[in-house]
Amino acid sequence: MEQLDRLLRDQAWDTARRELAGMRPFDLAEELTRLDRTERAVAFRLLPKDLALAVFEALDPPVQGELLEGLRADAVREFVGRLDPDDRVELLDELPAKVVNKVLADLSPHERRLTTELLGYPPDAVGRMMSPEYVALKSTMTAAQALERVRSVGTAAETVYTLPVIAEDRRLIGVTSLRRVVLAPPDTRIAELMTEPISARALTDQERAARLLQEADLLALPIVDAEDRLVGVFTFDDAMEVLEGEATEDAARIGGAEPLSVPYLIAGVGHIARTRALWLLVLMVAATLTVLVLSTFEAELEAVVVLALFVPLLIGTGGNAGAQAATTVTRAIAVGEVRFRDFARVLGREARVGVLLGGMLALVAFLAGTVFIEVTRQLGLADSARIAGVLSLSLIGICALAATAGALMPMVAHRIGIDPAVVSAPFITTTVDATGLVIYFLVARALLSDMLAAGAGAGA
Amino acid sequence: MEQLDRLLRDQAWDTARRELAGMRPFDLAEELTRLDRTERAVAFRLLPKDLALAVFEALDPPVQGELLEGLRADAVREFVGRLDPDDRVELLDELPAKVVNKVLADLSPHERRLTTELLGYPPDAVGRMMSPEYVALKSTMTAAQALERVRSVGTAAETVYTLPVIAEDRRLIGVTSLRRVVLAPPDTRIAELMTEPISARALTDQERAARLLQEADLLALPIVDAEDRLVGVFTFDDAMEVLEGEATEDAARIGGAEPLSVPYLIAGVGHIARTRALWLLVLMVAATLTVLVLSTFEAELEAVVVLALFVPLLIGTGGNAGAQAATTVTRAIAVGEVRFRDFARVLGREARVGVLLGGMLALVAFLAGTVFIEVTRQLGLADSARIAGVLSLSLIGICALAATAGALMPMVAHRIGIDPAVVSAPFITTTVDATGLVIYFLVARALLSDMLAAGAGAGA
Repeated sequence: MEQLDRLLRDQAWDTARRELAGMRPFDLAEELTRLDRTERAVAFRLLPKDLALAVFEALDPPVQGELLEGLRADAVREFVGRLDPDDRVELLDELPAKVVNKVLADLSPHERRLTTELLGYPPDAVGRMMSPEYVALKSTMTAAQALERVRSVGTAAETVYTLPVIAEDRRLIGVTSLRRVVLAPPDTRIAELMTEPISARALTDQERAARLLQEADLLALPIVDAEDRLVGVFTFDDAMEVLEGEATEDAARIGGAEPLSVPYLIAGVGHIARTRALWLLVLMVAATLTVLVLSTFEAELEAVVVLALFVPLLIGTGGNAGAQAATTVTRAIAVGEVRFRDFARVLGREARVGVLLGGMLALVAFLAGTVFIEVTRQLGLADSARIAGVLSLSLIGICALAATAGALMPMVAHRIGIDPAVVSAPFITTTVDATGLVIYFLVARALLSDMLAAGAGAGA
Repeated sequence: MEQLDRLLRDQAWDTARRELAGMRPFDLAEELTRLDRTERAVAFRLLPKDLALAVFEALDPPVQGELLEGLRADAVREFVGRLDPDDRVELLDELPAKVVNKVLADLSPHERRLTTELLGYPPDAVGRMMSPEYVALKSTMTAAQALERVRSVGTAAETVYTLPVIAEDRRLIGVTSLRRVVLAPPDTRIAELMTEPISARALTDQERAARLLQEADLLALPIVDAEDRLVGVFTFDDAMEVLEGEATEDAARIGGAEPLSVPYLIAGVGHIARTRALWLLVLMVAATLTVLVLSTFEAELEAVVVLALFVPLLIGTGGNAGAQAATTVTRAIAVGEVRFRDFARVLGREARVGVLLGGMLALVAFLAGTVFIEVTRQLGLADSARIAGVLSLSLIGICALAATAGALMPMVAHRIGIDPAVVSAPFITTTVDATGLVIYFLVARALLSDMLAAGAGAGA
C-alpha cells in the first residue's frame, strides 16, 4: 500500500483497483484519510460497491461528509441509509443544514424517525450517540422466549449482547446478557437472570457515560429518560470513540491548543494555526509579566550581569517541574483517581515532591555553578559559591512552587467546571516563570547585597 | 460515601459495613483505592464475602497485591483462584517471587497450567493479557451444534461473543460471533457464517493488539502462535485497559516524567519524585546550553540591557509553540493518522503554521514593544521601534523553528523506536530555548549594530 498515491497519480486504475479490493475496510479507511482530497475521491470510486459501503461506515464523519458532496443523490441515500442511526447523526452534524434536510427527506420513514429523535438531544449528550435499535426483554419471559425474541428482532439491533429488561410502562428494571440467556436452562425466568441495571440518562455527558461503561466493564449501557424509561443503548465501540476523542482533546489542550476538528493530515494549515493562535497569544500576553518583573530588577541585572545568564535555565526548570505535576494530576483527575476533596493531600505531596526534586537539582547546580562562575569570572571562590548559592536556593523554591501550582491549577479548574487540560503545562509554565523570577531576584538581594551595592563590578 | 474514611476512623463498624454493602463493586474499588493503606485493609475486611470477591477483581493489581499480604492462605487461594488467568498474571507480576510460587502451588492443576502458560510470554506481549479460556468452533458444525458447544463449555470462557473457527490442526481459519450463530437458521454451516479472521500473534505488543481491536471494532481478537494456531483471545475490556494505561503513560511522558506504576494517591512521595527526577535533571543539564549561549552574547546583553528583559518571553513563546506542534503530532502518530512517510508533508505544514503564528505575534509584539520601550527608556521612537523590530523578527523565526522542531522530534523518535511522548514538550522546549536565543541575538547584531557599538548607553 506504500504506493497507493503513486498508483493514483500514474492513473494505473486496474492495479489500484486490485490493491484496494484486497484490503480490509478499516485499513482502507485509514489509507483514504491520509490521501489528499482529490486522490481520496478517486480511490473511493474505484472500490467495489460492498467494500465502499463498509469503508464509508469506518470513516470519520468529516471525511464522510466530504465524500458525499461528490456523490449522486441515489448513492447518498444508499450510503447514509446504511449507517446506524447514531453514526448517521454524527455525520449530519458535519453537513450544511441544506444538505441535512435533503438527506433526511431521502431516508425511509422509520430511519428518519430514529434519526430525528437522536438529533433532538444536545450535541454532547449521550442521547446523540446511543442506538435506538435494541432488544428489550420482559422479566416474565423464559430464557427460551428471550432467545426467540432476539432471533425475531435482533437483526436490526446494534447489539444483542446486552439485553435491557423493562416493565409494562417501559421503565428499565434490570439488565441481562445474551451469554446468560444462552447458558441458562431454557425455562429459567428472565427475572432470575437479570441484575440491577447500571444505566445513564440520555442527557448525560458522553464522556461521563463512556467512563461509566468502561469502569463497569460493560458492552453496552442502557440509556433512560427522566422517567427512567428505556430509550436506547450506548455501545462500547461508541464509548471507545468518545474516550479516544477526549484523549485527543486533552492532548491538544495539554499542549496549549484547541483540538483539531478533523484528522491532522486533512486539516488545512489555516485551521491548525487557528486552533493554536488564541492560546499562544494569551500566553505571550501573560509572559509580559516576566518583562515587568525583569524591569523591576533591572538594577540587579546590570550590577551582576552573570545573574542574567541563568534566567532561561531557572524558568525552564520551573516550567518543567510544573508541567510534570500538572500532567500527572490532570491525568489522575481524568481517570477518577483524584477528586477535589483530596485537595490538601495532593498539594501537600506535590510541595514535598517539589522540595525533594529542587534539593537534588540545587546540589548539582551549586557544584557546577560554582566551577562555571569561578572559571569564567575569577571572582574568588567565595563569591562564585555565593552566586551559585543564589541559583541553588532559587531552584528549591521554584521547584516547590511549580509542583504545587502545577497540581493546584488543574484541581481548581476541574472544580469550577473548566477542562483541567486547558490550564495545563503552558499556562502553568507562564505563571511560574514570573513568580520564579521574583524568587530568584529576592534571594539574590538577600545573599548578594554587597555585590549589588558595589555596582557593575561583578558582571565583567 | 463522603464520610467512609471518617466512619473508619471513628470505628463505626456497623454503619461502615452497611454503607459498603450497598455499593457497586467498581465504585467500591475506586473508593478503596483512595483510602490509605490501613483504612483500606479494614474496609476490605468489612465487606461481605461475595462483594469482596467482586471488588477484588475490580482493583488494580498493585492494590490487589497489597491486600493479599494481609490475608490468610486459604483466603489468598480463593481470591486468586477466582480471577481470570490473564488478570491473575497481572497480579502475579506485582508480587514478590516467593509469594508467586506459593500462590501458584495453591491453584488447581488446570488453573496453574493456564497461568504458567501466560507467564511464559514477555511482559509487553499480548500473550500475557489474553484469555486461554475461549470457545472454538469447527467450520463443519451447524449453527445449532455451535450453540450446543457454547452451552456446554461457555461457562468457563472469558467471552462467548467472539467465536474463533479452527481447522483440525488448530489453525485459525475464521471468526464468527454468537450473534450470527443465534440469528442464523439452525442448520446453517459455520463455514457460511464465518469471516476472514483478524488476529494477532501472541508476541505482538499489547498496545498494537489493542489498537487493532479498537480500529476493527472487535469485541475480542483471536491470538495465534507462530504457526497460526489459536492460543487465546484478547478481549475488549483488557484492550481498553491497555489503551487507558498507554494514555496515562503518554500523559506522564508529555509532561516529562516517567509514568507512576500505581494510582496517584497510593504512590509515595519518593516514588513520585523518582519518576520525575531523571528527566528534570537531564533537562536542566540540557538547559545549561542557554547559559553558554547567553555568555557568548554577554557583550550585547551589557550594551543593550533592555534585550535581557524579553528573554523569558521569547523562549517561553518558542517553548509553547513547540509544545503545541509536538502534542498535536505525537497524538496524530499515536492514533495512526500520521506515519513516517508523511515526514516532508508534516514539516512543511508546521513550518507554514509557525510562520503564520509568528507573524501574528510579531505584529502584536512590535506595537506593544515599541510603546513599552519608548515609555520606559525614551530612546526616540525610531530606536524603540528598532528594538521592538528585533523582538518581532525573532518571534517569527522562533515560532517557525519551534513548530518544525516540535513536529520533527516525535516523528524521528517514533521512527527509531522511542516513544514519541518522551521527546515531547519539555524536551523540545529546552532545545528550542537555546536555538531561539541564538536567533534573537543574531537578529539584534544585524539590526542594532550602532547601538551595540555605542556600548552600555541604551541600557540605562
